[in-house]
Amino acid sequence: MAQQERAIRTRRAVIEAAASVFAERGYAAATMAEILQQAGVTKGALYFHFESKEVLAQAVINAQVDTELWMPRELKLQEWVDVGMTLAHRIPDDVILLAGIRLSADMQGRSRFGSAWPAWIGLVTGLLAQAKERGEVLPHVDPVETAECFLGAWVGTQLVSETESRWSDLGRRISVLYNHVLPAVATPAALVRLDTAPDRGARVLAELQEAAADRELVAVQA
Amino acid sequence: MAQQERAIRTRRAVIEAAASVFAERGYAAATMAEILQQAGVTKGALYFHFESKEVLAQAVINAQVDTELWMPRELKLQEWVDVGMTLAHRIPDDVILLAGIRLSADMQGRSRFGSAWPAWIGLVTGLLAQAKERGEVLPHVDPVETAECFLGAWVGTQLVSETESRWSDLGRRISVLYNHVLPAVATPAALVRLDTAPDRGARVLAELQEAAADRELVAVQA
Repeated sequence: MAQQERAIRTRRAVIEAAASVFAERGYAAATMAEILQQAGVTKGALYFHFESKEVLAQAVINAQVDTELWMPRELKLQEWVDVGMTLAHRIPDDVILLAGIRLSADMQGRSRFGSAWPAWIGLVTGLLAQAKERGEVLPHVDPVETAECFLGAWVGTQLVSETESRWSDLGRRISVLYNHVLPAVATPAALVRLDTAPDRGARVLAELQEAAADRELVAVQA
Repeated sequence: MAQQERAIRTRRAVIEAAASVFAERGYAAATMAEILQQAGVTKGALYFHFESKEVLAQAVINAQVDTELWMPRELKLQEWVDVGMTLAHRIPDDVILLAGIRLSADMQGRSRFGSAWPAWIGLVTGLLAQAKERGEVLPHVDPVETAECFLGAWVGTQLVSETESRWSDLGRRISVLYNHVLPAVATPAALVRLDTAPDRGARVLAELQEAAADRELVAVQA
């Protein structure tokens, strides 16, 4: 294994270990010793990548926005739906997302570590701008405004779902949210072609896993 | 002043004092002594109405949903808009709303004191059901589903606005939210008649204050 690749793996292992400790115990109660034990790396390796617990918390928050959340689709609006629906599906089992939610849950955390909000707004703004160029979006729609509005709606829906069902109804709630927002955004022609069913996130993730498995097979055969 | 009226005033004074202490210091740091001092009532009066800090916190949360948030309008959907827009306008200065937000801000608080969420969902469901009976709403709309969806969106929009601007942009954000949700809910004929401008909340509150002043004048003259 090349040195660079090893460094990337160590970094990833530490971020995942930190996320798991933050998600379970919160930032204040988490210790570097606990993260070290969970990560199974040397103390030197940990501090080489992350000089403090605070830097680690920021790394966990930045790791939330994974760009491999969707497949290219004919409609860019479908990609926007897929981003939100796969995210909803992943939350209950994804320790990095859970840690990010906990770290950014209060004002103190958000002002100290930041949040993934700007990254999500940027990602959705980009998809909506592309959708607009292709004529999928109603003419008066402002991609930034819609992306900011959707972020707020998404954050609250996640919070309510956490409270009411520990996220087990999040897929349904996000599906309902898209159904309530899309008529203000999509042209009628695009609207009727969009799939916003509650199980959309699970289906897209299965597709992504299959595509990743295919890529690995190709890599092994090459 | 009749005894019953005095009891109502004392109760209200204590709830407002408690709200102000909870909003500023949070539930854990607030003490009954501080609330007592702020309320300017006797210890006996306070404990007659509220046996513990926890009961007080629940009373503050229940006091959030004030039914005098809107005036009757020709369109029931406009009343729904007015409820959300006046709430957005009141938050930065209303100590009961601020305390409620702080008390219900985390999972621990919500499971201990409850939240105003069920009351808001009930209120909006009722308005949407009336709007539906009058033909203002698209046929496939389910009032409960839309009310729950809107609650989640509202909660998150409030949270993002608190973080980004300490609520100074909440009126604009809630206006944008209604513009994004109403096309999925209102018939085209109702939609074009709705006022969702960012200053709608301020104008409705001014109207409500004027109406209240008129009622007092009538009461004095009677």
